[in-house]
Amino acid sequence: MPWPIKFDNVLSAEHRIRSYLAPTPLRSYPLLDDATGMHVLVKHENHQPTGAFKVRNALSVLTGIREAERRRGVVAASMGNYGQGLAWAGLQLDVPITICLPHGVNPDKVAGIRRFGAELIEDGEDFKEASQIMEGLVQQRGLYPAHGVNHPLVLAGAGTITLEVLDQIEQLNESFDAMVIAVGGGSQAVGAMTVLRSRYPQAQVYGVQAEGAPTMHEAWKRREPMVGARITTFAEGLSTRQTYEQTFGALCGGLAGFVLVSDAQIAEAMRLIWRTTHTLLEPAGAAGVAALATLEDRLRDRTVAVIFSGANVDLDTASRVLSGQL
Amino acid sequence: MPWPIKFDNVLSAEHRIRSYLAPTPLRSYPLLDDATGMHVLVKHENHQPTGAFKVRNALSVLTGIREAERRRGVVAASMGNYGQGLAWAGLQLDVPITICLPHGVNPDKVAGIRRFGAELIEDGEDFKEASQIMEGLVQQRGLYPAHGVNHPLVLAGAGTITLEVLDQIEQLNESFDAMVIAVGGGSQAVGAMTVLRSRYPQAQVYGVQAEGAPTMHEAWKRREPMVGARITTFAEGLSTRQTYEQTFGALCGGLAGFVLVSDAQIAEAMRLIWRTTHTLLEPAGAAGVAALATLEDRLRDRTVAVIFSGANVDLDTASRVLSGQL
Repeated sequence: MPWPIKFDNVLSAEHRIRSYLAPTPLRSYPLLDDATGMHVLVKHENHQPTGAFKVRNALSVLTGIREAERRRGVVAASMGNYGQGLAWAGLQLDVPITICLPHGVNPDKVAGIRRFGAELIEDGEDFKEASQIMEGLVQQRGLYPAHGVNHPLVLAGAGTITLEVLDQIEQLNESFDAMVIAVGGGSQAVGAMTVLRSRYPQAQVYGVQAEGAPTMHEAWKRREPMVGARITTFAEGLSTRQTYEQTFGALCGGLAGFVLVSDAQIAEAMRLIWRTTHTLLEPAGAAGVAALATLEDRLRDRTVAVIFSGANVDLDTASRVLSGQL
Repeated sequence: MPWPIKFDNVLSAEHRIRSYLAPTPLRSYPLLDDATGMHVLVKHENHQPTGAFKVRNALSVLTGIREAERRRGVVAASMGNYGQGLAWAGLQLDVPITICLPHGVNPDKVAGIRRFGAELIEDGEDFKEASQIMEGLVQQRGLYPAHGVNHPLVLAGAGTITLEVLDQIEQLNESFDAMVIAVGGGSQAVGAMTVLRSRYPQAQVYGVQAEGAPTMHEAWKRREPMVGARITTFAEGLSTRQTYEQTFGALCGGLAGFVLVSDAQIAEAMRLIWRTTHTLLEPAGAAGVAALATLEDRLRDRTVAVIFSGANVDLDTASRVLSGQL
């Protein structure tokens, strides 16, 4: 299977989105290093204006499609963060946005999307069903479908994270051995691998999924696409239950390893991240750190980059995680 | 009383610290605007590498003193954030740092200071007593005393926040009517007024203190310096119980108003800030937003800048705030 995007597509996305988004910090925290036994480079995507990296993907799409397509309006299915990213980017670029959300998405994300002026359609039991509703709107209204994973502009947008990381390690006089990246649809990981294979091939990429949403991991082991069972993780940012044409081949071809973490491990990582960096993340955002314990044999004493991908967790879940009830 | 620093001192501090600290974002959040009835410009000092604005003050001191003074080593008393800022800045500049903390400072801050390589002396019941211990070390060891408030380089460092805000409102095509600033020792407020009176006199500055640490507020009303009673607020960043020579006159001369907020109001503001911006702050960092309700009559429908000054709250306090126990 050919690689879905080229390094130049990431460079181009970076050029298009730069005036809207300042680079997010790359930092290390001695207390986090002590706790993990690794030197951890943290990419702070939680500092994005929408609290999550997906705004890169959204801006990459809206700036990358044709003016006629922007004018028609853009539709996407989302578990929340991509929807917020599109709504925010639509405001900047004056593009009408429609977001299809399944029932049960966290109310903060729903409020955020609505307040950024997007039209919201809440229907369907999960992301897959919301995606089917989106396809219907493309047919009925002629909206442009900005698929949150299966779109080269999305992957290029996500790749800009790693492009920044490479710039930043140079400034910081750092280097790294591996990136550990949470896989929902796979845009972060495929974007990262696209950049690294071209500019920093010495670094390996490890994928992480939640035990309660393990379809991609299972398919990766079998090396064949699949649709999985019902999702049970509280990490809604990782709540996909199918493989995607544009990312699956690259994940199979490029990941050095792929591990699963439990919700309890994610919650523990959220507490550890709070104590050591005073950053409160959403569960999906903490999955990379959660996986470090599992990867300890391979990565002990190494320098490992992780992405704090988002912070959009509702108050109740945040409270239960910090108090140790989750 | 003459104004303690000049605008040019802030410019000079900005020039000295810029290579160490990227500007923090200035953002607005529609959901926060809806909740407050104001247009709120948020200055994200919680994004600083130490999680709090005090790193500006610390860097301003360490870059502003003479090389011989740096070599002697620097000592300061702190409630935590200034200590972390100095320890971090000392690492960057290779300056030995000693921090005097009273008993009971939150353990995350203590661990942070130690892990950044500073020498820690935990003694005394409160900031005032820790300050006396610091003065002893200046005598005994010849260390340079980097007082956290009463130092022109500190005030100039804090002023760089507002200097950035003025740059950023221009870029964002915004303007503002007022800043609402939490007062611990008063460096943020005096730094802000120094910049605004010179470059943006149309904006007013309001001060905020905690009801459980109201000394400065009381002294401001009486227009005379004082030392107050024991502190009862959980906002350790606001836990001062005396006026300071370098800030008191400017606060008396410059503040348009000064209000008190209860710990319950601060906790409510922390929850509101989480829901609307997905930023978890320490209590002192949320005091500005907590005061907006009290200032509603004066600031309704206005554009108001607040400083999310820090995020370094321990896990237990954070958990109790989010769950509504505080």
